[in-house]
Amino acid sequence: MRILIIGTGGTIASARTEKGYKAKLTIEEILKLAGIEGNGVEIETKNVLNLDSTLIQPEDWVTIGEAVFESLGNYDGIVITHGTDTLAYTSSALSFMLKNVPIPVVLTGSMLPITEPNSDAPRNLKTALTFAMKGFPGIYVAFMDKIMLGTRVSKVHSLGLNAFQSINYPDIAYVKGEEVVVRHRPELPEGEPSFDPRIDPNVVHIRLTPGLSPGTFLAVAETVDGIVLEGYGAGGIPYRGRNLLEAVSKVAREKPVVMTTQALYGGVDLTRYEVGRRALEAGVIPAGDMTKEATLVKLMYALGHTKKLDEVREIMGKNVAGEINSNF
Amino acid sequence: MRILIIGTGGTIASARTEKGYKAKLTIEEILKLAGIEGNGVEIETKNVLNLDSTLIQPEDWVTIGEAVFESLGNYDGIVITHGTDTLAYTSSALSFMLKNVPIPVVLTGSMLPITEPNSDAPRNLKTALTFAMKGFPGIYVAFMDKIMLGTRVSKVHSLGLNAFQSINYPDIAYVKGEEVVVRHRPELPEGEPSFDPRIDPNVVHIRLTPGLSPGTFLAVAETVDGIVLEGYGAGGIPYRGRNLLEAVSKVAREKPVVMTTQALYGGVDLTRYEVGRRALEAGVIPAGDMTKEATLVKLMYALGHTKKLDEVREIMGKNVAGEINSNF
Repeated sequence: MRILIIGTGGTIASARTEKGYKAKLTIEEILKLAGIEGNGVEIETKNVLNLDSTLIQPEDWVTIGEAVFESLGNYDGIVITHGTDTLAYTSSALSFMLKNVPIPVVLTGSMLPITEPNSDAPRNLKTALTFAMKGFPGIYVAFMDKIMLGTRVSKVHSLGLNAFQSINYPDIAYVKGEEVVVRHRPELPEGEPSFDPRIDPNVVHIRLTPGLSPGTFLAVAETVDGIVLEGYGAGGIPYRGRNLLEAVSKVAREKPVVMTTQALYGGVDLTRYEVGRRALEAGVIPAGDMTKEATLVKLMYALGHTKKLDEVREIMGKNVAGEINSNF
Repeated sequence: MRILIIGTGGTIASARTEKGYKAKLTIEEILKLAGIEGNGVEIETKNVLNLDSTLIQPEDWVTIGEAVFESLGNYDGIVITHGTDTLAYTSSALSFMLKNVPIPVVLTGSMLPITEPNSDAPRNLKTALTFAMKGFPGIYVAFMDKIMLGTRVSKVHSLGLNAFQSINYPDIAYVKGEEVVVRHRPELPEGEPSFDPRIDPNVVHIRLTPGLSPGTFLAVAETVDGIVLEGYGAGGIPYRGRNLLEAVSKVAREKPVVMTTQALYGGVDLTRYEVGRRALEAGVIPAGDMTKEATLVKLMYALGHTKKLDEVREIMGKNVAGEINSNF
């Protein structure tokens, strides 16, 4: 059994500095501090980045993805340590770029630096390692004894240790010591492993709020190739007082405008209310039950492959990596 | 005992139309369908708006606030029915505009139209009415037997009936039939009732995402008087690859840039990580433990009173209506 652990930084790699916590430990130092020795498992390590994940950019997803892809044949499982702030974006991006991984690829991190007492880093690392040894193919996130699908997680707490949740989707498994209790087997597409890093990072995510002016929306749209518009509840666009619908309608003829929701749970259904149906008529693409993170990254992925609106719409609505219930 | 019920529309007032659900019932029709008759309580009604709350604009908060303020002396409690989509924005706005209300002002709504079987409308209306009769001064939201502080709620589910949560703050009370079980008494400022509708609605809420370009941020900033930037986790601004920090720093010298967080729980703490400290140095104003809704509306409220950056910063950090823990 051979496991690769890839380090990218994050709180799990952080130590106190005069300017606040900063990522600086190598993955070897982390493993030593966590007291992880292998116990018959051959553990190899690779440091590809050492960054606070606030600093992670779309180009870094490619770097991490490459490191995973070139190692797929040589290991039984891969663990990636990562900052929690953008972990859900990276796990989504890896899921879209890396198709049909034949082994477990498990991202994890921690809310407290491994250099602090009572850090959750050793526990999360062990959870990730245990699951990585069990052979379930796919890209997952391990946090607080839970295994979640990489395209379904969001960071829901900025302080608490149970910081990640699987949104609109069941947890995959729980890890109890050496044991893995499987709760749900995701339906993932099958085929040959491949790595396709083509993305267009030039998208923006703007929140619909009362009073959002059409002028602001148009100014934003001007600067990007695609827009995620975070609507209210089931979704819809206002047209009273300020006619945002008109502005969205204009933009949606040229660039994809994808609607997600401010509500953490439940997703978007634009057929339910009049304000939603009008948004559909205006050309808005519904994000269905995708997380906000998966929605943004999938839009980058779609735009990396085509600029044709119909094709972007088709990609957004289709299940690529377990991220969406297409029948939603 | 006299209670006023103010109707503003929403799903609770909706009926099926050929184009999807649409707000159309009057508050009198809603009460009739809900089987609410008063039982010794004098119930008066007032229809001030009849809108899907996606369509509610900041100017409507003033209309609703006026209707509340002019009725304060004549009733023992006021209930406001409202769509759920922007209910948390309206409850926040009323809390900032209407200081020291001497009676309960309780907003409620429903996830299912009152015209549908098993609608939650009668239950939520009864919860709101029961609490409105108990004399606790302040602005609250009643939903699924819970009473929450108006400045602390967010809509967290786009489909489920238990759609609202009190964020980073305890529920105020639970209503069981005619009984009210108080859980937490909010510390609200005291004084004479007043109504101050001065707001500047020209603000925007943009989400920090990997790859967000400084150019997009600057283009957005150009069109507004203030910006809510929804960061990751505890908060921080990237400066690697794309130098967003530089753009934010430039804008923050002229207009308020307030940082909130994508994590539903836990709030913002810019002192914790290096990326956060650099944001503070750049002039970013932390939203602390406020909800995203309260943050946006409070920024409109602050800008409605002053354009001086120091004064906006002071208002944002100070507890005005229970919305923030200033020691956070």
